[in-house]
Order: sequence, then C-alpha cells, then structure tokens
Amino acid sequence: MTDRRSFWAWGMESQEPTAAKRESAAKTMSERFGVSLKTVQPRSIDQLDLRSPRITAPDSLSEIVTTDTYERAFHTYGHSFRDRVRKFEGDFPNPTDVVAYPRNEADVVALLDWCGGAGYAATPFGGGSSVVGGVEAPEDYDGLVTIDMTRMDRVLEVDDISRAVRVQAGALGPVFEAQLKPHGFTMRHFPQSFEYSTVGGWIVTRSGGHYATNETRIDDFVESVRMITPSGPWESFRLPGSGAGPSPDRLALGSEGILGIVTEAWMRIQGRPVFRASTGVSFPSLESVSEAARGIAQAKLWPANLRVLDPGEGAAMAGLDGNTAILIIGFESADVPQDAFIKEAVSIARDAGGQVDDDEIVISPAPAGAKTSSDAAGRQGAVGAWRNAFISLPFDWNDLTGLGVIADTFETAITWDRWPEFDRSVRGAVQDAMNRVCGGGMITARFTHIYPDGPAPYYSFTALGTPGSELSQWLEIKTAASEALIAAGGTITHHHAVGRDHRPWYDKQRPETFATALRAAKKSLDPNSILNPGVLIDP
Amino acid sequence: MTDRRSFWAWGMESQEPTAAKRESAAKTMSERFGVSLKTVQPRSIDQLDLRSPRITAPDSLSEIVTTDTYERAFHTYGHSFRDRVRKFEGDFPNPTDVVAYPRNEADVVALLDWCGGAGYAATPFGGGSSVVGGVEAPEDYDGLVTIDMTRMDRVLEVDDISRAVRVQAGALGPVFEAQLKPHGFTMRHFPQSFEYSTVGGWIVTRSGGHYATNETRIDDFVESVRMITPSGPWESFRLPGSGAGPSPDRLALGSEGILGIVTEAWMRIQGRPVFRASTGVSFPSLESVSEAARGIAQAKLWPANLRVLDPGEGAAMAGLDGNTAILIIGFESADVPQDAFIKEAVSIARDAGGQVDDDEIVISPAPAGAKTSSDAAGRQGAVGAWRNAFISLPFDWNDLTGLGVIADTFETAITWDRWPEFDRSVRGAVQDAMNRVCGGGMITARFTHIYPDGPAPYYSFTALGTPGSELSQWLEIKTAASEALIAAGGTITHHHAVGRDHRPWYDKQRPETFATALRAAKKSLDPNSILNPGVLIDP
Repeated sequence: MTDRRSFWAWGMESQEPTAAKRESAAKTMSERFGVSLKTVQPRSIDQLDLRSPRITAPDSLSEIVTTDTYERAFHTYGHSFRDRVRKFEGDFPNPTDVVAYPRNEADVVALLDWCGGAGYAATPFGGGSSVVGGVEAPEDYDGLVTIDMTRMDRVLEVDDISRAVRVQAGALGPVFEAQLKPHGFTMRHFPQSFEYSTVGGWIVTRSGGHYATNETRIDDFVESVRMITPSGPWESFRLPGSGAGPSPDRLALGSEGILGIVTEAWMRIQGRPVFRASTGVSFPSLESVSEAARGIAQAKLWPANLRVLDPGEGAAMAGLDGNTAILIIGFESADVPQDAFIKEAVSIARDAGGQVDDDEIVISPAPAGAKTSSDAAGRQGAVGAWRNAFISLPFDWNDLTGLGVIADTFETAITWDRWPEFDRSVRGAVQDAMNRVCGGGMITARFTHIYPDGPAPYYSFTALGTPGSELSQWLEIKTAASEALIAAGGTITHHHAVGRDHRPWYDKQRPETFATALRAAKKSLDPNSILNPGVLIDP
Repeated sequence: MTDRRSFWAWGMESQEPTAAKRESAAKTMSERFGVSLKTVQPRSIDQLDLRSPRITAPDSLSEIVTTDTYERAFHTYGHSFRDRVRKFEGDFPNPTDVVAYPRNEADVVALLDWCGGAGYAATPFGGGSSVVGGVEAPEDYDGLVTIDMTRMDRVLEVDDISRAVRVQAGALGPVFEAQLKPHGFTMRHFPQSFEYSTVGGWIVTRSGGHYATNETRIDDFVESVRMITPSGPWESFRLPGSGAGPSPDRLALGSEGILGIVTEAWMRIQGRPVFRASTGVSFPSLESVSEAARGIAQAKLWPANLRVLDPGEGAAMAGLDGNTAILIIGFESADVPQDAFIKEAVSIARDAGGQVDDDEIVISPAPAGAKTSSDAAGRQGAVGAWRNAFISLPFDWNDLTGLGVIADTFETAITWDRWPEFDRSVRGAVQDAMNRVCGGGMITARFTHIYPDGPAPYYSFTALGTPGSELSQWLEIKTAASEALIAAGGTITHHHAVGRDHRPWYDKQRPETFATALRAAKKSLDPNSILNPGVLIDP
C-alpha cells in the first residue's frame, strides 16, 4: 500500500513511531522525571468509531468527495498538542462529514455553492498543520465539509525576470519548491511545518518562515492573491507595490479561511543562495544576547538567519552547557559575497559581549586568500546541531504521545523596551502554572524572528502530566501563558495564527471596531456564514 | 502679519511668486513653446466670493471652528494641478462650510458626533497636499465640515530602546522631525510634500518616502494606529510584528479618511545617518539603466536611494545631456560603514553597462586610507543637482500658474517582465493625447522606488494648453494616462492615493469583492456615511 499521512502523528504512516522508539522515549522521560512511564498503543483507523456521515454530496460532486473513515479522521483536526492527543486516544466527537478534494476553481465554486445552499460549514484545509484549531469544524452545523486543497498544487507560470511565480494554493512546501528548482529559484519560506503546509495555508495564517529579519512573513512574498468567496472571485492586480486604497492582499492575508478560499497566488521568489556566511556567537545571558540581536537588527544588516537561543534552549537543542546563550547569525545571497556583512554583524555581537573565534565564522565559497574554508556554512557546530534538532522536533513529539508528557510551544512578539521584563513575567506565569498543575516543568525560549523594534520570542515548555488528564492540564498551562502574553502587551500569536484556540485572547487584542468591520466584511461575502465558522470572529 | 499657507500656491504666502518671477517664467515658457505668454494676476482672498456658510456649529464647538473666508478657501482643495488652477482662478462652487481645528481626541469625537447627527460630510485634512482630490468635499451634502488635524502635532513618547515614537497624527513633516532631533532620531520619511503633509496623512494615503528600496512606504514604519471612528476608537497593540488575523493597521493604511480619523500612531524611527556612500552611474538608455536597477534590487543590497532618471528627466532635473540616463545610488546607516555595500552595487551597475569613475563614488566619512574624501555624499554633481531640482519643483509650478502651461505628474508600479513595453505604451498614450489636445508636449520618467519584482515609475509631463481651457485639456491627458496605466496592468497609484480623481480606474483595479467588503466595513463603522464621502468607494 502506498504511504499516506498518519491520521494522528506528524509525518507519514511510515514515520509513525515504532514500539521500540516509543519504549525508548518512555525510558528517557522516566529517567528525566524520576517516574516509571508506560507506553500506550495508539489507535488504528479500524478502531475509530466515527459518527456516520450526516450528509450526502450531490451526484455532481461525487468525483471529488469521500466519506472514508481515514479521510474524515485525518481531516477533523490539525496538529496541535491537543489535536495529537485527541487523535491518539480516538476522541472524535464531531468528525467532519465529508472530505472534498477540488481539482480546479470550478470545483471550489461548486462546493461553496452546495454548502451555502444547505447551510453546511465549509472548512478549507491545506496541509493540516494548524496548531491553533484552525481546521476544526464547529458543533452547531448540520453538516461539515472539509475542503482539502492539495490536488491544486501546480506552479502555473514562472516569471524569471521579475522573480515571481503563479502557483495554486494547495501546493505543499516541498511540492512547490520542487517545481521551482528546475528554474533555478526557491521561495525559501520554510516554516517548521514546511513539509505539511501549503502556500494557501501560509497566506491565510500569515506564516513566518526562513528569514529571521526583514522579509520574515509570507505577507512580504505575496504579489497578488486569488480567492474564491461565496460572492465571487477576489483577485488583486499583480504588482510590486501599490498605494491604491487599503491593500486587498493584506485583508486576505490572515483571513484564516473566513472570507474565501485562496486558490492561487503570485509569489515572489529568490535566486538559490550561492554566497553564505554563518557563525554562532556565545553569550553569558539572555540579556546580553538580546542586546546583540537588537544591535544587529537596528543596524539593518538584514541577515537571513538571526536566532537567539536562551541557555535552556541552547542545552536542549544545540548541545551547549546550559549556562550559555547563543546567537546564530547567517547571511546568504544569490548575487553578492557576504563576508563584509557578517563581519559587521559579528563586530556588533562582540561589542555586546559575545564571544566567537574568527575561525568559527564560516564563509562559503571561501573568499580568496582565506584560511577558513567550507562549503557548509550553516551546518557547522552548534549552528548545525540546532538546525537538526529543529527539523526533528515534531517527530520527537510523536514518540511522547500517550505518556502523559505535556510538550508544547507558544510564540509572540514584543517591543524591545518591554524585554526582558516581558520574558520574566511570561516565563514566571508558565512556570507557576506547571508547578501548580504538574509539580514542575521546564520552559525555554528562542527568538525566531527579530525586528528593529522588537523580537518574536518562541517558548517551549515540557511538564509531566497525568495520562488521561493531560488535556485539561495542558489547557491550564496554555491559558496561563496566553493570559500572561496579553497582560504584558504581547501578541497572542506572531505566526501560528488565531484559529479557535487563541480566540479568547485575540478577542482582547484586536480593536473592537476592527472586529465590527471584519464581521461586516465577512457577512457581505459569506452571507450564510459557511466559511470556517468559529475561527477569528463570531458572525 | 504672521506668515501663513498660501491659499492657492505651494508654500507660504511669503513664498508666493512675485510679479518678477512670474514674468521670468512666462519668458522662459514663451521661448520654449515659441509663443508669447502673458502672466495673469492670481486672485487675492478679498476677491473670492464664497457661498455663505450653510451651517452653524453648536456653541460647544465654538472654540475650535471657524468660517473665515481664507480658512474655507484654503481647506476646500488640495494641491493637484486642477486644484491650483481652480484656486488661482477663484473657482470655488462648493466650498467647505466650516473648518474645525480639534485640539484633542475629545474634540474629534465631538465633531464626528455633530456631523453624524446632522448628516454633514466630515473631511479630514492634514497638510492639504493631496494631488488626487482627497480633501475635496462632495456636492450632495447639506453641510461640509473640514477637520484640520494640525493642532494635534506633538510627539508624546519616545522609546529610544525600540526606536519608536508615539506621535499625534497632525504633525507636519518638519514639526515631527524637529521633535525627534533632540533625541538623536529621525524617521527619514520624506515625501516630496514633506513640509506640508502630516503623519496621519501619510498613513491614510500609504505615502512613499525617502527610502527607494525595502521599507519604501509609510506602511513599514507603522507599529500601531489609533483612529477615531464614528462607532468608537480603533487602536491596535503596539507590536514589532503580529500574525493575529488580518492586520488592523493595514486596513487603516490607505483608508483615506473613510473609516475614521487617525489621531495617533506609534512610528518606527531611525538613528541619524552617520555613514553614507553615494554615486551617479551613467547609462546610454532607459533599458540599460533599468536592468542595473533590477540587478541591484534583486541582489537585496537595499540602498536607501536607488533612483533612475531617464534621459529626459536627467536633462531637465540633473543637468545631463539628454542622451544619458542616470542611476543614483545612495547608501546610509547610523551604525555601519557603507563602503562594501556601494562597491557591490556599483559592480552590478557596471556589469549592466553603467559608467562611473571610482573617484565619483563619494563615501563619508572617508574610509581610512581613501584618496576621495567628502562629508557631502548625496550632494555632489548630478546627484546633488537632481536633489535640488526635486525640492524646488512644486515652487516652480507656482510660477507657471495662469500661463496655460499644463504640468503634472502621475505614478504607478509594474512588474519587471512588463517593462519597458509598459513604458512605451504609457508614454505613447500620453504623447498622443498631448499631441492631439495641445499640439505637442514632453513626457519624462524616473523610478522613485524599486522593488525586486518591479519598479515604481513616475512620469512628468508638460504641454502648452490654452489659458481658461487648461483644465479640460489636462483632464483629457490625465484620462489617457490613467487608461493606459490600467490597460497595461499597472496600479493607478503607487503612493499618491486614490481620492476622487483616480476613482474610475481604481474601480477597475480593486477586486469587486474587496469593494463589497470595504463598503460593508465602512457602513458598520460610519453608518451615516459622513466620513470623506466620494473618496475610495461609494456608500
């Protein structure tokens, strides 16, 4: 049988953790927490007892819809901690009824017409990587239709002069990049979900990607968006810039499927990097590494990578000693050597108290006359260790499922003037919650993206919950984190989106008048309230 | 008597053209067009015969309103070619009835309450520099109230750690910068209208400024916006970045006063430049200079200045020979020397066929050991000549008023793949129109802003019309230009905004579904349709 996505784990069925891997994870965690943890067998598809589909698609849609149990289970949730536990435990009280795979825009229109006429909820679905309840259907609809866009995954035009492509929204990251490669291009938008997220998903969730500074967010790569709304198509002119009224693209960006289904976009692409320069600079504290990051960002050197790992994250993810923070600096360009740029960045980092030897600055291709030579800038030492750990993390989490281990992340952004007090208050609130709920736990932080006016901190926490109770325990910790973010002036999300899970805090963050305007805009385009109900705003 | 803004000319009353200057301009134009042009005396305020104010503000507003003739005349129009001619000729068929100067937000709220209750149009007014009919009131209201924001012009907070300030929206460019200077900061947003445009005006029109690449637009400098809508305040969290739903700020940006009146914003600021590097590179054609600009933009070197002047513009504005295009390259930084950056940019320009001697590359402060030394990077030779001509242009136009000379600009943006065919079709359409309407004329182009995926071309045209008929002649040429822009896939405006004048073409550009959404959003916030009616959308 051909491989397919695991209905519960991150990755493919072939990548689901083996019994041996789960035993090994249980042993590691048992030692770490000083208890004896037992593995639990995940449900198989055959063991799921889903509610029967409540609705039947019209014959005209029969070629593109399915009510197969695997398909319905896979499409009912995203990939948050809560989603993974619920899937693992076979907890599907409100499964989607029908899964549709449109092949073209006419199919999308037909599906929206069907749902609109019948009053069924239509949930757009890209790679299903949402960690915020962004693809979970509501309770109070008579029918739930999930619209999986991944059959619309083609690059339709390549403009190598302007460096832009027209691509269908259902292209998963690797599917998209594979079509750019023969043309010598790349978009270099690599969210951690890259393998299992789509161009359209990136757009509607305003995803953050590879670049740590300057053009960090998918917003900056969008030239134009084409979206099918229940009231007709929405397509902006393809332009490098425009000042004609509020940007239509910027209203589609972050709309999380409530205004329409993105079917195509013109996206800005890059030449493949030829020149690279990277290093890792060590610091004695989060405070000092933060100052270095601020200095480099405010100097507007725009490194492609500029990641801060706090001492805890440095130990867990990059093999450091637990007392050392690290600043990973990486420059890259298709066109010009990056030696001068990294020299300036390292100089700023050293002025802020950072330590790095000259021969730890890896430049490729090596400049003429240089002693250091490597074609592996970005893969060396702590920098490379962090990169590998970053990529494997979602798979490591698969192994932990069922053990009662609560492992999750949350992310935000804040201006520099509130940092590091912001960090102390958020970290304190989460630590308190973990102590109260789980008798302890660990929280670490990194900066995923850095702006001249502030960082985007990304927190990871791990605690030992009680198998069977981990979701209520998790929710208590997640709530404490979210409350702390908003109380300290941070955003409830920098790039994970709002979905359903962040609603209570998003509702405090967005201006009430903006919610009024957005609600009116949605009502005008989606009068039957069929599109992704429950996400972002209530009707 | 203290100086005040001229009611008709660009600048202050003290800067209105003298009789001698107008004679001199008439002589120059007479020679240029081979005819004998006679100056006409502009109207004075005393000669204006405005319709009597049709409405009276309630006593509670008496301290902040005026019906003075000068105030009403000054606030009835912006500063487009059409506006200047109408003011010069005393043509005020629909003058604003009342001008208000709110001192604080409570005043703004009271004014909107008054207008909302009575059904009067409320037109927000910053510096009055609109060239698109953005501050002109509609015909079909019983009362017109213009709300001049310039009394709310204070910087309220400076955050020197994050490099951001909270500023009231009515601060004119120089008033804003003067308050930043003691703190060692600058925003460096210098639209051509800088002296007579406000922070709030920049935000609602998505103005383009000093920086030619990367952060070109005011959008990129906005951390958060506070706006008073008829339905209450709208204020976003102050954040370096957020992915929580569609950006509220991006809906305020470009809203041109139809959703609310911006009262305050947190704006990102810069350290004052210390390190500079600049040069002018010569090219034999618009095609070759365009290729150089594309190369530098796609290499993502992000120069602060990267302006292309076509041969005509080079002759008119920078003293060149009429056969030479020029690329002005300028780098600047508060923090790091710019030598390496300009070296890479010049290398790309030379590869594209550009000519510049090494000693024409001015770096300041001069690097150790350099032969060239100057503290005036950006002010030398053709670069400096262009800068001076750019600043004085609006004043030169004052001198021409009344002679029948039609002199105007329009601007757009387009992807590189359509350039230079785009240029040929737009230029051809405008030249045809000038030939048809005026028996000839001149059109030149420059790039004001350059993106990796395309330039923002800015066209200037001059033709000799017939005194008294220049507005209908101008409209014919402007219409031809606008039709050509849209037909060739360009935006109707890159940074001048839509206002009333660009409506017919904006209506073709924006997605109809977006208009539906925007109309619904406006209706939800401004149920009585009082805010800047006629701009952007109809109710």
